[in-house]
Amino acid sequence: MLDKTETKTFLDDLFDQGLLIETGVDGLYGRSGLFEAIGDGFQALVSRYGAADEAEVVRFPPAMARSIFEKSGYMKSFPQLAGTVHCFCGNPADHVSLLQTIEQGGDWTAGQKASEIVLTPAACYPLYPTAAKRGTLPAEGRLFDLLSYCFRHEPSQDPARQQFFRMREYVRMGTPDQVTEFRASWLERGQALIGELGLPFTVDVANDPFFGRTGKMLAINQRDQRLKFELLIAIESEEKPTACLSFNYHQDHFGKTFGLTSADGEVAHTACVGFGHERVILALLKHYGTNVKRWPASLRQTLGL
Amino acid sequence: MLDKTETKTFLDDLFDQGLLIETGVDGLYGRSGLFEAIGDGFQALVSRYGAADEAEVVRFPPAMARSIFEKSGYMKSFPQLAGTVHCFCGNPADHVSLLQTIEQGGDWTAGQKASEIVLTPAACYPLYPTAAKRGTLPAEGRLFDLLSYCFRHEPSQDPARQQFFRMREYVRMGTPDQVTEFRASWLERGQALIGELGLPFTVDVANDPFFGRTGKMLAINQRDQRLKFELLIAIESEEKPTACLSFNYHQDHFGKTFGLTSADGEVAHTACVGFGHERVILALLKHYGTNVKRWPASLRQTLGL
Repeated sequence: MLDKTETKTFLDDLFDQGLLIETGVDGLYGRSGLFEAIGDGFQALVSRYGAADEAEVVRFPPAMARSIFEKSGYMKSFPQLAGTVHCFCGNPADHVSLLQTIEQGGDWTAGQKASEIVLTPAACYPLYPTAAKRGTLPAEGRLFDLLSYCFRHEPSQDPARQQFFRMREYVRMGTPDQVTEFRASWLERGQALIGELGLPFTVDVANDPFFGRTGKMLAINQRDQRLKFELLIAIESEEKPTACLSFNYHQDHFGKTFGLTSADGEVAHTACVGFGHERVILALLKHYGTNVKRWPASLRQTLGL
Repeated sequence: MLDKTETKTFLDDLFDQGLLIETGVDGLYGRSGLFEAIGDGFQALVSRYGAADEAEVVRFPPAMARSIFEKSGYMKSFPQLAGTVHCFCGNPADHVSLLQTIEQGGDWTAGQKASEIVLTPAACYPLYPTAAKRGTLPAEGRLFDLLSYCFRHEPSQDPARQQFFRMREYVRMGTPDQVTEFRASWLERGQALIGELGLPFTVDVANDPFFGRTGKMLAINQRDQRLKFELLIAIESEEKPTACLSFNYHQDHFGKTFGLTSADGEVAHTACVGFGHERVILALLKHYGTNVKRWPASLRQTLGL
């Protein structure tokens, strides 16, 4: 028989301490006030590192228009992760039969119809078409500050792989020089920031879970062109550390797709840096322990705890 | 021909000022940093009014387990408002055909399968089963502080009727006396709070949009038993003011449904006060104008602006 303390997972520990709260679905958890306070401290730290750039703050709800989502190309790369929102559009007779189905434990969801709304897969997806609507970019380009809940359908008992999680992003739009310079500067800042939190990390090219056979080609292209770097921290596993920050160069993908133009008349390029809100909190809880009162005083001070 | 200034709606004005941002779907909007700052000020004010009670802070993502949602009875009352989350579960061949359908502008959503997740219709729905899991309530009952994005499928050009919006709630669980006293005290506090913001309001019994024929009975019962009061402020219309706060007594509905027991061994009663985050912000913008710099200095100070 295994010793109980040996089989207790990190997720169990988070539940026991009340930091995360079970909801009956893997990867869908409530958060305690303390968990949120750590997150607030982290967000304030990110804002401090980005303050000099004076990004424009925009906040989207955790969903976007299906028409824009379809255009974005997300279903080509990650169809298995997307979540569409469906609704009941029936009459009172349909309603009676729906309630009977629920009462009998049957599947009542087959009659649900797709709405115009899809859950946001990454904080920046709703931004590009709204930015394009404002017309040609100014000569200095634009910079946005985003934060939203995102959805990815990947049920897991790894607390660092949640279905609903928050992503903070800075998104740069402009010429290739402007956006690659932005990415390079955040690649430095991101490492300094995580270093200030005292967390051991590595930086590597990304390895996204593109779907199917064509997906393999997309993954090779992403690696070969060094389009995405990740800052990885060991959370659930030492061997497979978790991407906590990512640094993405989209080239002209979103510019072309949504008609975003630079001041020089060329298709705008875009880049973003993304911060996995829950992942950084979890990395801190893993590294320093789930008893936050025992965290180093200097760290607590950095996070305003 | 109508004068353009006469036909401009409040929503147009919010878009023009950049306070809300169009996404292509009615009732789904981005928010500017200023819009969010007003909301932060409002939330801090709510916290100040509730501080003495020392509520336990819990934050859920904008979704909940479908199994719990089914049990809650929401589909009996408001099936038309609910949103279920559906996903692609196919193989690579299905994926190829899905992409072809998207490319041809067809309906690719028919193949989406319901996941275990449903969007949260009101901030407190995910709370009851998790509270019940902690066992019998202590003698003094419990009090929770919640805030989350919620979804209601009611596309509208009234900015105060959004599909994705935030709801702050305090939720009380205990004996009938404990929870009715809680509701009575917030009925007072809520009026004082909105009074401090200088907004004209009325308080009335609620008039929820229950679905179908049985829904009419539920609505009559809700009114006759005075189970729900609303604090209403004129936003989109003077004649039909908008419910910005609500004060709900659920009797033993959630206690019975989710097995929540009071210290005296009886089924626990529950009550909640809900604050429509966006609605209060919009009420302020409607009443004081969309040029926030011109708001009274004392109001700006109250909101930390």
